[in-house]
Amino acid sequence: MTSWVDIPKDSDFSIYNLPFGIFSVGNGNKKMGIAIGDQIVDVYAIAEQGYFKELTVDKGAFVTDYLNDFIDLGKPVTNAVRLKVQDLLSDKNHSLLDQTKVLVPQSEAQMHLPVLIGDYTDFYSSIEHATNVGKIFRDPENALLPNWKHLPVGYHGRSSSILVSGQNVYRPKGQVMLPEAKDPVFQPSSKVDFELEMGFIIGKNSRIGESIKTSHAEDYIFGKVLFNDWSARDIQKWEYVPLGPFLGKSFASSMSPWIVTLEALEPFKVQGPEQNPEVLPYLTYSGQKNYDIHLEVGITPKNGEENIVSKSNFKYMYWNVAQQLAHHTSNGCNMKVGDVLASGTVSGKEENSYGSMLELAWGGKKPITLSNGEKRKFIEDFDSVTMRGYCEKDSIRVGFGEVTAQVLPAIN
Amino acid sequence: MTSWVDIPKDSDFSIYNLPFGIFSVGNGNKKMGIAIGDQIVDVYAIAEQGYFKELTVDKGAFVTDYLNDFIDLGKPVTNAVRLKVQDLLSDKNHSLLDQTKVLVPQSEAQMHLPVLIGDYTDFYSSIEHATNVGKIFRDPENALLPNWKHLPVGYHGRSSSILVSGQNVYRPKGQVMLPEAKDPVFQPSSKVDFELEMGFIIGKNSRIGESIKTSHAEDYIFGKVLFNDWSARDIQKWEYVPLGPFLGKSFASSMSPWIVTLEALEPFKVQGPEQNPEVLPYLTYSGQKNYDIHLEVGITPKNGEENIVSKSNFKYMYWNVAQQLAHHTSNGCNMKVGDVLASGTVSGKEENSYGSMLELAWGGKKPITLSNGEKRKFIEDFDSVTMRGYCEKDSIRVGFGEVTAQVLPAIN
Repeated sequence: MTSWVDIPKDSDFSIYNLPFGIFSVGNGNKKMGIAIGDQIVDVYAIAEQGYFKELTVDKGAFVTDYLNDFIDLGKPVTNAVRLKVQDLLSDKNHSLLDQTKVLVPQSEAQMHLPVLIGDYTDFYSSIEHATNVGKIFRDPENALLPNWKHLPVGYHGRSSSILVSGQNVYRPKGQVMLPEAKDPVFQPSSKVDFELEMGFIIGKNSRIGESIKTSHAEDYIFGKVLFNDWSARDIQKWEYVPLGPFLGKSFASSMSPWIVTLEALEPFKVQGPEQNPEVLPYLTYSGQKNYDIHLEVGITPKNGEENIVSKSNFKYMYWNVAQQLAHHTSNGCNMKVGDVLASGTVSGKEENSYGSMLELAWGGKKPITLSNGEKRKFIEDFDSVTMRGYCEKDSIRVGFGEVTAQVLPAIN
Repeated sequence: MTSWVDIPKDSDFSIYNLPFGIFSVGNGNKKMGIAIGDQIVDVYAIAEQGYFKELTVDKGAFVTDYLNDFIDLGKPVTNAVRLKVQDLLSDKNHSLLDQTKVLVPQSEAQMHLPVLIGDYTDFYSSIEHATNVGKIFRDPENALLPNWKHLPVGYHGRSSSILVSGQNVYRPKGQVMLPEAKDPVFQPSSKVDFELEMGFIIGKNSRIGESIKTSHAEDYIFGKVLFNDWSARDIQKWEYVPLGPFLGKSFASSMSPWIVTLEALEPFKVQGPEQNPEVLPYLTYSGQKNYDIHLEVGITPKNGEENIVSKSNFKYMYWNVAQQLAHHTSNGCNMKVGDVLASGTVSGKEENSYGSMLELAWGGKKPITLSNGEKRKFIEDFDSVTMRGYCEKDSIRVGFGEVTAQVLPAIN
């Protein structure tokens, strides 16, 4: 399938992708958009021309601050809208739409957080990441804790501070216990880190008391985004025993603005790693539940060029999204449309595929040298961190664009 | 001050209280209400008569599913509404209102969750509770962890599963590691517990990057509720290292329907316990920041009578709400109107003032005997747990009503 829209070579936003987002132009209203090439389809403008008449969705639904109500219409409707737009954008329909009315250049639009996020949960599902962190923070001989291979370890995160790509991040201040010190001090974190993650967006409410089976998990997932779970390692280290990460995480997380649907990602499913020991029955699954998504992280220092510091892949994850959702609801915890569940840092086996500075610079012991000669153990003020992700198979590319943010000095 | 409304003796809802909630009658709309005695003031009905004309708040604001938008108007408005209602309910104005139009018996109304909760945070701020848990779960000699006296330890909780008083709770299922076992099993929790807590409701947004000082904290707090942070100790124990409590908590929390304002609680402030070692400057405070709130917990077994198993007091808390809020925002984490911050279990020094079954029955070693002869180590199916709280001084009583919920068997 090809499109009458001029799509740059290697664009993440091919006609096979068509992810959903929220955009605005100038001081205009926020609206639902669909990305194609370097353009945005103004879905309201298409609705105005009557193309969704048969879908029982009012055009007013497309002028909205968040996608939640649209997503809540259910996959039969959201898929139908996406497929209708795909049809309208395809070559055979090149004369139906007035391009000047329905397309907005991405360069002229501002992107916003696509969903109102009720709850945000962060998992810890890469065996390479959990092993690396265990080696650095705890015991190299017993890096993985006893529960790790039996359940997808996770924790509740902070949703209020999830930002959309492009919003800057202030360096957090906090209590840290310095080496050799007797008492903690309060100061700007000196160990600000990124975590390369993917998030998935809940697409269907579940009831309290209800558990979602791995075989039904995809019915409850609308799509995926890139996710940077910013971390302050020094704050985290002092605070996290016994109740887990708190202020070391909650100063900010960043997500990409376009939600790539599960339907667009379907061709890129792959088998996950073998799970040994065998998991309990509620965590078993059949079929391919991992996704082959190429990921990379770049650091751009102030007035410098970008340095790609990691190339990883989402297919490495030990625990898959179906297992994460089944586990999360196994106790009857209810899910709400717009909730975000993130994967945990996506690290691969190779040293250049680790998904955090903690691992890449091995707790500060192996600083990274940037192209301008500067060294990095963690992220410095005015560094920008950019994450990208895409799938490719049979010349079809479906990508996520990017999530980027610059770290600004702590506010005084 | 006395009211023309007939207020039962010892009612929590005196004319000095006037807490806010959301109620409905039959299939009617949800509306904002104010409790007085065993009645609810229908604020919309008062607004219709023009009594809030000077307050620039449209009467439509009082027909609403949640209090968030009202709270967001700010304390000058919300206080003025409360004081106007107090004036209208006072004896001197006994002839102004038509009681049949503005009062609804609480027995005829259904109460709902008063706010749409974005984020929920749970602290761990009772030194007695933290010490007891440390003794039971870890090391009796080193019960308090090194960070505990330096910062109010807390973690992000799950907001979707916060229920209003009266909603039942399903026993959660989950992975547990049984004593002597090599591998975990998946089963209904056999250690369902309550935690006697108080929650406070954020009343003003803060910006990301901004830190709230202890001296300004009260500007950001709308009021308080009773809070039962249900816990499944067996699930929690197996999952919580290293990222903290997750499914052992997220199956349900219960809160009382009436938000008692900080203004109503002002007369009941008391000095908190001495903090030693001295806290870091951002956690210092001046003035009285603890509250003298009598708390109790009752267990009612199926077809049995209520057994009061704990009498505690909120004044025991080591860390106060101003410190909790200052700490939470010290890293720049933003607060949103409607967010809930809970205190952690409120345990006193005496064995009959502990705020959880874990402590009351000392990890199962000292079962509690109920009046019907049954014993309890934890909460059993069909037990109802009820928490109550009130302040009293100079014959003035300001109370919270109750938060109650029955535990139902796990869903199969």
